[in-house]
Amino acid sequence: MSVLIKNGRIVTAAADYIADIFIEGETISTIGKDLKVSADKTIDAGGKLVFPGGIDPHTHLDLPFMGTYSSDNFETGTRAALFGGTTSVIDFVIQSQGKPMQAAVEEWHKKADGNAFGDYGFHIAVTDFNPDSCAEIKDLIEYGITSFKVFMAYKGALMIDDEQMIGIMNEVRKHNGLVSVHATNGDMIDFLVKKHRAEGKLEPLYHYLSQPEITEIEASGRFIDIANYTGVACLIVHMASGGALDKVREATKRNQRIFVETCPQYLLLDASVYEKENFEAAKWVMSPPIREKKDQATLWAGLNQGLVNFVGTDHCPFFMKQKRMGEKDFTKIPNGAPGIEHRIELLYSEGVRKGRISLNKFVEITSTNAAKVFGMFPRKGCIAIGADADLIIFDPDEKHTISAKTHHHNCDYSSYEGWQVTGKCKTVLMRGQVAIENDEIKIDKGYGQFVKRGPSSLVI
Amino acid sequence: MSVLIKNGRIVTAAADYIADIFIEGETISTIGKDLKVSADKTIDAGGKLVFPGGIDPHTHLDLPFMGTYSSDNFETGTRAALFGGTTSVIDFVIQSQGKPMQAAVEEWHKKADGNAFGDYGFHIAVTDFNPDSCAEIKDLIEYGITSFKVFMAYKGALMIDDEQMIGIMNEVRKHNGLVSVHATNGDMIDFLVKKHRAEGKLEPLYHYLSQPEITEIEASGRFIDIANYTGVACLIVHMASGGALDKVREATKRNQRIFVETCPQYLLLDASVYEKENFEAAKWVMSPPIREKKDQATLWAGLNQGLVNFVGTDHCPFFMKQKRMGEKDFTKIPNGAPGIEHRIELLYSEGVRKGRISLNKFVEITSTNAAKVFGMFPRKGCIAIGADADLIIFDPDEKHTISAKTHHHNCDYSSYEGWQVTGKCKTVLMRGQVAIENDEIKIDKGYGQFVKRGPSSLVI
Amino acid sequence: MSVLIKNGRIVTAAADYIADIFIEGETISTIGKDLKVSADKTIDAGGKLVFPGGIDPHTHLDLPFMGTYSSDNFETGTRAALFGGTTSVIDFVIQSQGKPMQAAVEEWHKKADGNAFGDYGFHIAVTDFNPDSCAEIKDLIEYGITSFKVFMAYKGALMIDDEQMIGIMNEVRKHNGLVSVHATNGDMIDFLVKKHRAEGKLEPLYHYLSQPEITEIEASGRFIDIANYTGVACLIVHMASGGALDKVREATKRNQRIFVETCPQYLLLDASVYEKENFEAAKWVMSPPIREKKDQATLWAGLNQGLVNFVGTDHCPFFMKQKRMGEKDFTKIPNGAPGIEHRIELLYSEGVRKGRISLNKFVEITSTNAAKVFGMFPRKGCIAIGADADLIIFDPDEKHTISAKTHHHNCDYSSYEGWQVTGKCKTVLMRGQVAIENDEIKIDKGYGQFVKRGPSSLVI
Amino acid sequence: MSVLIKNGRIVTAAADYIADIFIEGETISTIGKDLKVSADKTIDAGGKLVFPGGIDPHTHLDLPFMGTYSSDNFETGTRAALFGGTTSVIDFVIQSQGKPMQAAVEEWHKKADGNAFGDYGFHIAVTDFNPDSCAEIKDLIEYGITSFKVFMAYKGALMIDDEQMIGIMNEVRKHNGLVSVHATNGDMIDFLVKKHRAEGKLEPLYHYLSQPEITEIEASGRFIDIANYTGVACLIVHMASGGALDKVREATKRNQRIFVETCPQYLLLDASVYEKENFEAAKWVMSPPIREKKDQATLWAGLNQGLVNFVGTDHCPFFMKQKRMGEKDFTKIPNGAPGIEHRIELLYSEGVRKGRISLNKFVEITSTNAAKVFGMFPRKGCIAIGADADLIIFDPDEKHTISAKTHHHNCDYSSYEGWQVTGKCKTVLMRGQVAIENDEIKIDKGYGQFVKRGPSSLVI
Repeated sequence: MSVLIKNGRIVTAAADYIADIFIEGETISTIGKDLKVSADKTIDAGGKLVFPGGIDPHTHLDLPFMGTYSSDNFETGTRAALFGGTTSVIDFVIQSQGKPMQAAVEEWHKKADGNAFGDYGFHIAVTDFNPDSCAEIKDLIEYGITSFKVFMAYKGALMIDDEQMIGIMNEVRKHNGLVSVHATNGDMIDFLVKKHRAEGKLEPLYHYLSQPEITEIEASGRFIDIANYTGVACLIVHMASGGALDKVREATKRNQRIFVETCPQYLLLDASVYEKENFEAAKWVMSPPIREKKDQATLWAGLNQGLVNFVGTDHCPFFMKQKRMGEKDFTKIPNGAPGIEHRIELLYSEGVRKGRISLNKFVEITSTNAAKVFGMFPRKGCIAIGADADLIIFDPDEKHTISAKTHHHNCDYSSYEGWQVTGKCKTVLMRGQVAIENDEIKIDKGYGQFVKRGPSSLVI
Repeated sequence: MSVLIKNGRIVTAAADYIADIFIEGETISTIGKDLKVSADKTIDAGGKLVFPGGIDPHTHLDLPFMGTYSSDNFETGTRAALFGGTTSVIDFVIQSQGKPMQAAVEEWHKKADGNAFGDYGFHIAVTDFNPDSCAEIKDLIEYGITSFKVFMAYKGALMIDDEQMIGIMNEVRKHNGLVSVHATNGDMIDFLVKKHRAEGKLEPLYHYLSQPEITEIEASGRFIDIANYTGVACLIVHMASGGALDKVREATKRNQRIFVETCPQYLLLDASVYEKENFEAAKWVMSPPIREKKDQATLWAGLNQGLVNFVGTDHCPFFMKQKRMGEKDFTKIPNGAPGIEHRIELLYSEGVRKGRISLNKFVEITSTNAAKVFGMFPRKGCIAIGADADLIIFDPDEKHTISAKTHHHNCDYSSYEGWQVTGKCKTVLMRGQVAIENDEIKIDKGYGQFVKRGPSSLVI
Repeated sequence: MSVLIKNGRIVTAAADYIADIFIEGETISTIGKDLKVSADKTIDAGGKLVFPGGIDPHTHLDLPFMGTYSSDNFETGTRAALFGGTTSVIDFVIQSQGKPMQAAVEEWHKKADGNAFGDYGFHIAVTDFNPDSCAEIKDLIEYGITSFKVFMAYKGALMIDDEQMIGIMNEVRKHNGLVSVHATNGDMIDFLVKKHRAEGKLEPLYHYLSQPEITEIEASGRFIDIANYTGVACLIVHMASGGALDKVREATKRNQRIFVETCPQYLLLDASVYEKENFEAAKWVMSPPIREKKDQATLWAGLNQGLVNFVGTDHCPFFMKQKRMGEKDFTKIPNGAPGIEHRIELLYSEGVRKGRISLNKFVEITSTNAAKVFGMFPRKGCIAIGADADLIIFDPDEKHTISAKTHHHNCDYSSYEGWQVTGKCKTVLMRGQVAIENDEIKIDKGYGQFVKRGPSSLVI
Repeated sequence: MSVLIKNGRIVTAAADYIADIFIEGETISTIGKDLKVSADKTIDAGGKLVFPGGIDPHTHLDLPFMGTYSSDNFETGTRAALFGGTTSVIDFVIQSQGKPMQAAVEEWHKKADGNAFGDYGFHIAVTDFNPDSCAEIKDLIEYGITSFKVFMAYKGALMIDDEQMIGIMNEVRKHNGLVSVHATNGDMIDFLVKKHRAEGKLEPLYHYLSQPEITEIEASGRFIDIANYTGVACLIVHMASGGALDKVREATKRNQRIFVETCPQYLLLDASVYEKENFEAAKWVMSPPIREKKDQATLWAGLNQGLVNFVGTDHCPFFMKQKRMGEKDFTKIPNGAPGIEHRIELLYSEGVRKGRISLNKFVEITSTNAAKVFGMFPRKGCIAIGADADLIIFDPDEKHTISAKTHHHNCDYSSYEGWQVTGKCKTVLMRGQVAIENDEIKIDKGYGQFVKRGPSSLVI
């Protein structure tokens, strides 16, 4: 199978030119002006942009959580991702406390293998660190799971303490892996949750008020301090608050490097969503919660300063009926929201078109940097000879409206219902196959493959 | 004329792959596996790295300064640059006080046009800001000179005061230009110079001791504060001190973005050079002076943090006989040193091979980021279809020794005499022409062209 | 002459107790319970507070400025001060450019000697630093003028450049004096003034808009950086902006100590005064201008953090007819406002009673710290045996209203017209003499004496 | 009983004068020149300094800890304190996990009442925070125990988690109390301890290496962040590291106020003590451990910046035979060292005489600020009418040598063995009684009384 894409404006993190791309099999074989090749399929990309396929490094598909499961599994989730130009995801395998990490990896493979449309890698969340799980780290890295997440919140479920955290960092560093963190102070949150419950404050708004900015700032600072001591490569995921970024900025003064991820919801929404009535606020119950407009401004600035490195979604959708488990008690609302499909179009429309980021930066934060940080580069994250032909052919001018009626998430609401967006992923290629065309999925379930990852190429 | 480069490992800021590059005329037309093309010339790049041609955004060629001229002119300077893989330079046109900037631009064209081997752009240093020069800014930007330098030191010669500085910023911002700065506090330096002279301290060491770190820190902070107020795109050139970078880091907290350049001498040398006897220390008399090992560490960290954006040379060579004008008084030693030829090989050998920076980062800081910041991208700074075929074919393993005996600078000493370097620019192409091959220059004087620059593509 | 003050609650920076104070001649001789002494005069202070006489370290009496003179001279100014509990002032002698400092000192003595009611010391503003004035510094310090002020604004009139500033610091440090600063960037202000004038923006509001916070932040940071290099004891006067205090806070990290003064107007008023119509805004035309409510909060916090050390007034009154010199051009409005009389009552009413500062802190910032920093301690600034009997007997509950109709400033408006104040200076003693009683002045013009000051006792 | 002290130079935090002090009963009744009174005892203090009695706010007397008891009890400890001019201590009552705080208070009263020579107050360390202990807080504050300590280290023994910490802060704030902290990250330390033990690194040096600076920096930052959220008055005790002070300095930028205590050992000693051989290093095994010379410099600067508020000792002595419990395992060495007797003389000799602090500052940090922060002011901490006649008559010139042979600690070694000290507490008065004279104790065991404390007078 070969594909020829004609006359697209090809934009990577470090190039911007008009050319043809010739794909043979799964990878790009030639790029050039007016290529004289015969292809099984030719796509006219004139007037279109061509980007590397998006990488969403933060998804929770088929996640058992808070007594239910996230409503997108690997089939529906990676399909929705492809509609939005995201060709690879990295999903979080969650260790069950008392069990080896390997067991969870196997479980996740069962969820994903044969079901995914797009490619997928795995992070692993270490929820029970002990000599046995310590011994697994080296093997997991060799296996291609090179990033280890710790939770500083969700005590009794996911949270590890600082002794475990430094232990994990110490071991991961030895094998050149990376430690990422859900950085909020679970103890503070638990105090506030109990306080609000004791006061009969049970609406979704109190989810927000139980996780004030300081809970994120403190934990981010603590993670940074401890990581600096161990020397491990480190990443703060889903940064929501400007104050947390200031901890990163302050730490640069001791020559430390910290990777940072943020998400579209933190760049584009603000906490006024929690004031919506009739339980609608539950749609945005996620952790950390969405913050203020000033935080949006700081996170956009952070992207341009190079201190926020990429944008994931933390996609973790639940139907409203699932959300309603917490109708009388916000602590029972499953945390999470859909988003995997809209990351790229939102960042283009709200970022590039509104002059907040350049086109090259857009590619960097939707694809290239995640590929580099997570050891998928240069196979992914770029448009280059031999690289996987994961590509987006993008109409920069097509306007459309985000709605639960039309999105592909397996979820009955959208976090961005009614948002007008300019720019659309028209055709998406997935390892050389046309995966999305004419608003339809063109590949089969199970086309997606596990991506064995290597060491980060951004870490020195 | 066409050239085919076979089987090189092509490394850009955002890709890393093995392929053939086919060049037709001045630009790249095709990149691919096993290209079946007929070329006028074929180069086997197997086992070699292929980088975008280097861009040195900080040169002083044929500069009238301190009663003499820098010893490399556009002919010798750009030739030396090419030997070291630098295919484009941006030289500083210096306005003469009392004269229009346009006059200086014309003068610099006379120096460069018809003489340069490599391509060249111009910055302009505004030394006399008044309503007349203010009116020139818009025209200069349209002409392709989009970066305006101010000197906060050299009072009576180059220095402008803060009122002029804010005036320049205000005007440049209106037209989407960029203001760069020599950030040292000239008044403090003048005080210390006079103090040292009064005390009979006239050796080159006192050049260093007259420009303590605080003179750079203070001026950097002032420039940043004023730039933030005006909102202009801004750049600190030749940053030498870690304390100055801390001013940048602190300013990130108010969402400000400041571009930063450093130079190989500040990354690799330390102030012990000023203790050398018999006037040898004069070789490194430059401004700002070389600082401490801790500053080196901070600047390397800054590159990886994304807060130091690229590396220029501040190439400004003088023969020892010129330096000896200050044999009895350090203030008469012409400030500057040679370096244009060795930037790329030094950064590869000391940076990449020693694990301080990644290969992609190496390309970013030697070429891509300068192209982006200075409006030469995507014509320069990348390896892409339609881009200028400015390329380095680099042997990553060849060892050689830097010496004045062998360098191509028009200068009788080297700042790095005797340094062992691993990695060598074997073949250099300049807009499609083989410029360097077998240690010989293959193009003619005058091949280099003026590069009309546009607005910065990194500035949002 | 002897005075016995019975049963007052005596409050100093480091004590708080009820006792009698016995004064013989000019100083306190005994403090105790139920003193059995015969006194020429006995004052019942039961239910009253007794404070050390206030020290206002920042006044401009009889100041030639902007083509006129401040409207309070040493007679009217120190009389108003006494009504408000301030028994000592330190006035700024201003060197005339081209003349020795000694000449200005003599001139100021002519203004003050024989005219002042209260005691007075002198700072000197160095406006023309050269080898001659450098040579005067040692003598002035020996003479009792130990604090040297520099202006970073008012170019052409008062401003010195950084070379002069470092020169002054260097010399003052040798003799253990102190350098204080008017820290605003005059060059930036001049730019904005010219810009506003060019745009026909001539109302008093543009005075404020010509001195944005950054002009104060930048200059404060520069002064701090340069002072740190020289090691001189240093003080920033009339700090108005929170951002400037942040420069002090940041500098504490390098173990630097910087003294800071603020003024009641910056603690209590905000920039909304500049929106008043019909030229009324001119009343608050001063430099730096009054800033925002957030700055008030920061300055109050700074007092409690110990980083803002004391409160002066920058008293520099002008009649409205003088202000009207600038009716058509804000740059011609004499800068300054009255305030010397209300500092203590305002800080008590707005500070102590509103819970912003403790009683001990109130004494510290109105009297003790200024005495310590400026070398008047322990003669002034405390209530102690042998110390000058400068005392305030204060009714903490008496309510009154500030008004130009009743104040003792020689000025036809008040910055605080109509403000309700709780707490009143009922009786004020000045070196053992009852100076104020029953709202009348009881001592004669000329009672005030020059205070020869020594080295700062807060500087280590 | 009455005492007349003649002609001493009386120094407080805010005064410095020569006078007589007349004491009737337990308090000062008169201060004046040449007092004509008849006294039961007259002391000639000519040529001597008179200071307020020292307050040591950090002692551990008769402390059950690590399987043994600290070797000074209230009898021997307060006696040693008096020899060194410290007339009041505040000792830490330690709640036993599972028991009410009240039980511990009663236990401590049994230790102290009838045994102490000097006065004593109590802090309480909350080691088991739950609804029951929460309910005790209000009562304890009313009872006069107004400061609540939390340990962020010693897991399983003293450490509380962040949820408990925020709970304590929240409750203490409601009742205007103060929360103090042992700020080191116990989890990190536990990790390092286990690591060192696993590696067979069991010497005292590894105590030091198990508590690197970051463990203190991180915990200090966390405590500050959480305290800021709750708004509680807060104190970091025994600060040892400059990095921890930088967290305080950074927090000043958000207008936060944090009280800080340091100790003589952190101001005067450095970590080279841990390199001493033959188990001698065990003498300085304490937590946090002693750090570097740079930290000393920072802490001295902090005192002068007003950001370090007072100096306690953390007196917690053990005999070498007790220390030897850890001869084969540093984790079994009881943590702590003697120091209560030498705080004042060391700070005078090393602080005042070496020009690091002023005399007034010396009094402030040894007495006044602790009295203010801990609600003992103005009864303690000053020399004033009606205040407790706790006084030191101090010979500023007498030289002596610190040694275990001569000290009054119940401990067979001194942390400062052989140190030459200039300045000696000659006579010490304790509530009007001569307590120390001619190197002898003159009062009886049991003279010391419990001091009921009130709210902090430094907290606004």
